[in-house]
Amino acid sequence: MRTHFCGLVDESLIGQTVTLCGWADVARNLGGVCFIDLRDHEGVVQVVAEPDDRPVFDAAADVGYEDCLRITGTVRARHSVNARIRTGRVEIVASRIEVLNKAETLPFYLHETPGEEARLTWRYLDLRRPEMQRMMRTRIRLVQALRRWLDARGFQDIETPILTKATPEGARDFLVPARMHPGEFYALPQSPQLFKQILMVAGFDRYYQIARCFRDEALRADRQLEFTQLDMEFAWVSERDVQDATEEMIRTVFREVVEVELDAAFPRMTYAEAMRRYGSDKPDLRIDLELVDVAPLVAHCEFKVFTDWAANPDGRVAALRVPEGAALSRKQIDELGAHAAKFGAKGLAWIKVEDAARGRDGVSSPIAKFLDDATLAAVLGATGAQSGDLLLFGAGAWKVVCDFMGAVRLKVGRDLGRVAAGWKPLWVTDFPMFEWDEEEGRYVALHHPFTAPAVDDEADLRANAKTAVSRGYDMVLNGNEIGGGSIRIHRSSMQSAVFELLGIGAEEAKAKFGFLLDALRFGAPPHGGIAFGIDRIAALMAGTESIRDVIAFPKTTTAQDLMTDAPSPIPDAQLAEVHVQVRARD
Amino acid sequence: MRTHFCGLVDESLIGQTVTLCGWADVARNLGGVCFIDLRDHEGVVQVVAEPDDRPVFDAAADVGYEDCLRITGTVRARHSVNARIRTGRVEIVASRIEVLNKAETLPFYLHETPGEEARLTWRYLDLRRPEMQRMMRTRIRLVQALRRWLDARGFQDIETPILTKATPEGARDFLVPARMHPGEFYALPQSPQLFKQILMVAGFDRYYQIARCFRDEALRADRQLEFTQLDMEFAWVSERDVQDATEEMIRTVFREVVEVELDAAFPRMTYAEAMRRYGSDKPDLRIDLELVDVAPLVAHCEFKVFTDWAANPDGRVAALRVPEGAALSRKQIDELGAHAAKFGAKGLAWIKVEDAARGRDGVSSPIAKFLDDATLAAVLGATGAQSGDLLLFGAGAWKVVCDFMGAVRLKVGRDLGRVAAGWKPLWVTDFPMFEWDEEEGRYVALHHPFTAPAVDDEADLRANAKTAVSRGYDMVLNGNEIGGGSIRIHRSSMQSAVFELLGIGAEEAKAKFGFLLDALRFGAPPHGGIAFGIDRIAALMAGTESIRDVIAFPKTTTAQDLMTDAPSPIPDAQLAEVHVQVRARD
Repeated sequence: MRTHFCGLVDESLIGQTVTLCGWADVARNLGGVCFIDLRDHEGVVQVVAEPDDRPVFDAAADVGYEDCLRITGTVRARHSVNARIRTGRVEIVASRIEVLNKAETLPFYLHETPGEEARLTWRYLDLRRPEMQRMMRTRIRLVQALRRWLDARGFQDIETPILTKATPEGARDFLVPARMHPGEFYALPQSPQLFKQILMVAGFDRYYQIARCFRDEALRADRQLEFTQLDMEFAWVSERDVQDATEEMIRTVFREVVEVELDAAFPRMTYAEAMRRYGSDKPDLRIDLELVDVAPLVAHCEFKVFTDWAANPDGRVAALRVPEGAALSRKQIDELGAHAAKFGAKGLAWIKVEDAARGRDGVSSPIAKFLDDATLAAVLGATGAQSGDLLLFGAGAWKVVCDFMGAVRLKVGRDLGRVAAGWKPLWVTDFPMFEWDEEEGRYVALHHPFTAPAVDDEADLRANAKTAVSRGYDMVLNGNEIGGGSIRIHRSSMQSAVFELLGIGAEEAKAKFGFLLDALRFGAPPHGGIAFGIDRIAALMAGTESIRDVIAFPKTTTAQDLMTDAPSPIPDAQLAEVHVQVRARD
Repeated sequence: MRTHFCGLVDESLIGQTVTLCGWADVARNLGGVCFIDLRDHEGVVQVVAEPDDRPVFDAAADVGYEDCLRITGTVRARHSVNARIRTGRVEIVASRIEVLNKAETLPFYLHETPGEEARLTWRYLDLRRPEMQRMMRTRIRLVQALRRWLDARGFQDIETPILTKATPEGARDFLVPARMHPGEFYALPQSPQLFKQILMVAGFDRYYQIARCFRDEALRADRQLEFTQLDMEFAWVSERDVQDATEEMIRTVFREVVEVELDAAFPRMTYAEAMRRYGSDKPDLRIDLELVDVAPLVAHCEFKVFTDWAANPDGRVAALRVPEGAALSRKQIDELGAHAAKFGAKGLAWIKVEDAARGRDGVSSPIAKFLDDATLAAVLGATGAQSGDLLLFGAGAWKVVCDFMGAVRLKVGRDLGRVAAGWKPLWVTDFPMFEWDEEEGRYVALHHPFTAPAVDDEADLRANAKTAVSRGYDMVLNGNEIGGGSIRIHRSSMQSAVFELLGIGAEEAKAKFGFLLDALRFGAPPHGGIAFGIDRIAALMAGTESIRDVIAFPKTTTAQDLMTDAPSPIPDAQLAEVHVQVRARD
C-alpha cells in the first residue's frame, strides 16, 4: 500500500514519486496552501497540497486530526528547512490524498500527557504518542539484545507451563478451575523456578526464557499482577560463573540498547555490609550517604532508647550524617521522622551541627542534653560531622533500624539532590539462609526454599540455621534489585533438610515438591541461575519511574484493565462448567 | 567446573588434560579396565580408568548408571575407533573421578522409549533421552530462526496480557477469579487477536509475539490446553503482502533449521476448489488422490441416495478413485466405511473395477445393479477408472460429503502407501465469511468475527451474507493447517454490521468489544495478520506425529501434568480469598 515510510523520506528521494501511509499529525491551511504533517512509526514528513490542484487541495482541506491517510506525491526540497526532524529538508507535493479511515474527535491530544485513567482507557491512543513509542521500543530492543547474547552462548530458550501446580510457599497464587477435574485447580506460575531446575536435571545444560510470572499481591507501588522476567539456569556452575556471565550480559545490553558503559567489574558487597552501610540489601550507591554504627559510643549515655538498644545484641543504633542538613527546617525534619515511622521507626533523633568547632555549644538537638561531652564528641567524630550538617539517629531492633534508616537515607538523598548522575550496579551476596518469622514461629527462606546453603553438610546447617549463609546473590542497579538468583540445592537429602527447617514436614514436602525430591535422586547436576526483571530494567533504560510505561497493556493499581474492562462478571452457567460458584458475601 | 563439553572432545586435544562433567551413560569393567561413557548435552566420550591407578580405578568401578560425575584426565588417541560418534577417535585416561550426585535405579533405561505415562511422570529422565534432546532442540532452533527473520524486518516483539477479559465468542475460556474484585474473573487469552489489532491502531506498524494461547477444549487428538503460536500483524497491507512475506519466512526457517527447500512459490487454492478436489480445507497434497463430482452423471439412476442428493442444491455426490484398490478385501472396505461414518457418512458405496474393458461384467459392486450401462460407463469414464481400481462414493449434504470423503481419501492414501515423501505447502484462500449454525439458528464466523469480508460495503454484505467470501487465508503443509490469518475489519461501521449478522446485538457488542469498536473510530489503519502453530511446525520439522514431543512439559489427554500432579485440590480458605467455592456435585 506504500512505497516508503513517512519518517524516512529524505533528500535522496527528491524528484521521485512516493506513496505514504500515516496519520495526520497536523493539518492546516496557511495562506491558501494546505499542509499535512503525515506521521508513521518512523516519524513525520510534511505534505503540501497546492490550490492549483483543486481536487487534492479540497481533499487536504477536509483532513482532520489523526485521520488515517494514504498520500501519493512528489518529493521536493523544502524552502524553510526544519532541522529538528529527519525529513526536515524535504516535503511531498501531493497528487492524491486518500482517506483510509476518518478519525472522530480524540479524547486528548497526542502531544499532551493525559491522566493515568485516560491513558489506560484509550491505551491505543496513548501508545501512539511518540514518547510511549520511544519507551516501548527501548523495551523491545532490550529483549532483542538479551536474546542475541543468550542465543550466541548456547542458552536454550524453553517454554514452561502457565497452567501448573499451586505451590503455597511464597506469594499468593492465581487459581484456574479445571473443567475436566471437578474441584481441582491449576495455578499460574510465580516463576518457572522448579521447571528450570528440572530442565537442568533433564540435561539442557543452559536454559533461558523470557517468562511471564504471576503474583496475586497487593499492587503497592509499581507492581503488576503479571510481569516478565528473564529466567536463566546453568548446570555445573558455581555462583561466580553465573555472576560473571550475567554481569557481562547486562553490560552488553546497556551498551547496545542505551549506549551506557557500566563498570568493568561490578562492586561486590555482602548482605551484612550493605545493611550496615546503607540499611538496605539493594543500596542506591548513587547517593553518597552512609550509616554509621554508634552503639558502642552511646552505650553509657543518659538517653534510654540508645542505651537499651545498644545493650541488646539484636539491636542497632545508627547515625546518618546529612551534609548541609542543618539548613532543614523543623518541619522538614519532622517529615523525615514521619517517613521513618512508615518503615517501623518509633522516632528519629537528630543533632544539627551549626558549628562543629564549638562542641556542645555549636549544636542544637532535643537529645544533646542526654549526651555527655565525651559521648557527643565521639559521635560527632565517628560520623565526621562538619559545620552545617545534620545527624539523624535510629535505634531499635537491627532489621527495623536498617529498614527505616535506609529509607531515610534514600529520601534525604533525593530531597537534597544528592543522587549522582549515572549508573551504579553492584552484586549483593552472602544473604542469610533463613529469617525467623515471629508470627508463624518458624524460619522462612530469605530467597526461596531451593537455595543452597554455603555449607555442604546437613548436620552443619541444622546446627547453625540461625546464622547460616546462603549461596544467593542479587544484582542491584541504582537502588533497584534488577536480578536475583542462587546456586540451588542439588541433593535430595539437603533439600529435605531445608524443607524440615522451614517447618515443611516430610509428608507435605512429598505432596507439594515430591517431583523435585525425586528428580534430585537420579543424578541431578549441581546447578544455579538467576532471574532478571525485564519490566524494571526496561523502565530504567527508558528513563521512566513507572514500569507501566514499558508494558503495552498494564493493569491499574486496582488490578483492572481499563481498556477491555477486565476482570468482569461471568454467567453462572459458565462457572458451573468449571465446577465453581461465587461465594455469598459475608 | 569443567574445561570442555564431553561431546566435543576431539583429536585436537590429544595430550591435554581436560575436566568434564556429565552422566555415566554406560559404566563397565572389561578385562580389568573400567570404561565409562560420559554424556552431556553435546554427546558422549569414552573415559578409561586403568588398574595401575588404584583410587581412580576403584572410583570408576563404583560408578552406576546415570551417576552425575566430574572427571579429570588426559586425552589420548583411541585404539579401536568408533566412527559413529564425534569423539570416537579419542578417549580420556582418568586421573580423578568425582561423584557429584549418585543416581538411584532409574525407572527406565534412556535408550528405550518408555510408555507415555512413564515418560510424563519422570519427564526429567524422558527429556535426557537423545531423541527428545534432538526434537526439543529442533523446536528451539525453529523459534530462533523465526525471531531472526522477524527482527531483521522490523517486526516489534510486544507482550500482551495473559490475565485478560473473557470473550464468549469462540472456544471455552479458562477463568481466573479476581481477588480484588469479588465475583469477577479474568480469562486467559485464546489468542492475542484483539490486542494485536489494537497495536496496529496504536501505530506499531508490524508486530509479532511468540504467544501462549489457551483453549479449554476436549483434548481430542493432539491438542494441548495451552499452546504456542507465532502471532503477527501488519498495518497498511493487503492479503498478498502478508502471504508473500510469511511464505518467505517459512521457506527461510525450513532451510535454516532442517535444510529443506520448500516450493519457490506455494500453490494457491480457493476454499471451494480444495473442498471439491480434496474434501478438506487443509488438503494433504502428498496424496495424489482426488474427488470427482458425479452428481450430474448419476442424477437419473435408480440408486435413490444418489438421485436424491444429486437433485438437492445443498447436496454432493462424489467419487474417489483408488488406484489398485480392487485388491482391498471386503473387510478393509468395511473399515473405510466405518471410518467415513465417524465423519458423518451414512454409508460408503463402492465399485471394484476388475477389468475396465469389460464394462458391467468387469466390475463387482453392491450398487452396480442400480446403475444403467450408460451411467456406469460415464462414472468409470469421469473417474478415469483402470482395471484393478476401487471407486468409493459418498452422497449427502455438501459439507458432510466433503468431510467424510476427505477423511477416506487420507486414510486410504496412508493405508495404501500413497503419501509421497517431501513437503507440500499451499495457501487456501477465499473462505466463506459465515457458516450457518443449524443448532443456534444463526450465522457463525468461519475464521473469527474480526475477519474482513471481500466486499467493502456493509449493505452488500448484508444482502449476500450466505455466499459472502472473506479475506481469510490459511497456510497448509502436508495436510496440516500450520498458519491462519486474514485482513481485518478496520472500520467501525463494518465491524458493527458483522456483529449484527452474527446475532451479536449492539448492546452485547458494546459490552464485549466496545474497546475495539472505539479503537476503529480514531483512524484505525487497514491491517491484517496471521498466526502460525509453533508446536505443530516444530513437530513436523522434528519428524514426530505428536506435539508432545516438542513441548517440554505437556499435559496428558486428560489435562493433567503427571510430573507435578496438577491440577490439584485447593484448601477452601484459599478459595475464600478469591471469593469462590467448589460447587456441590449434582
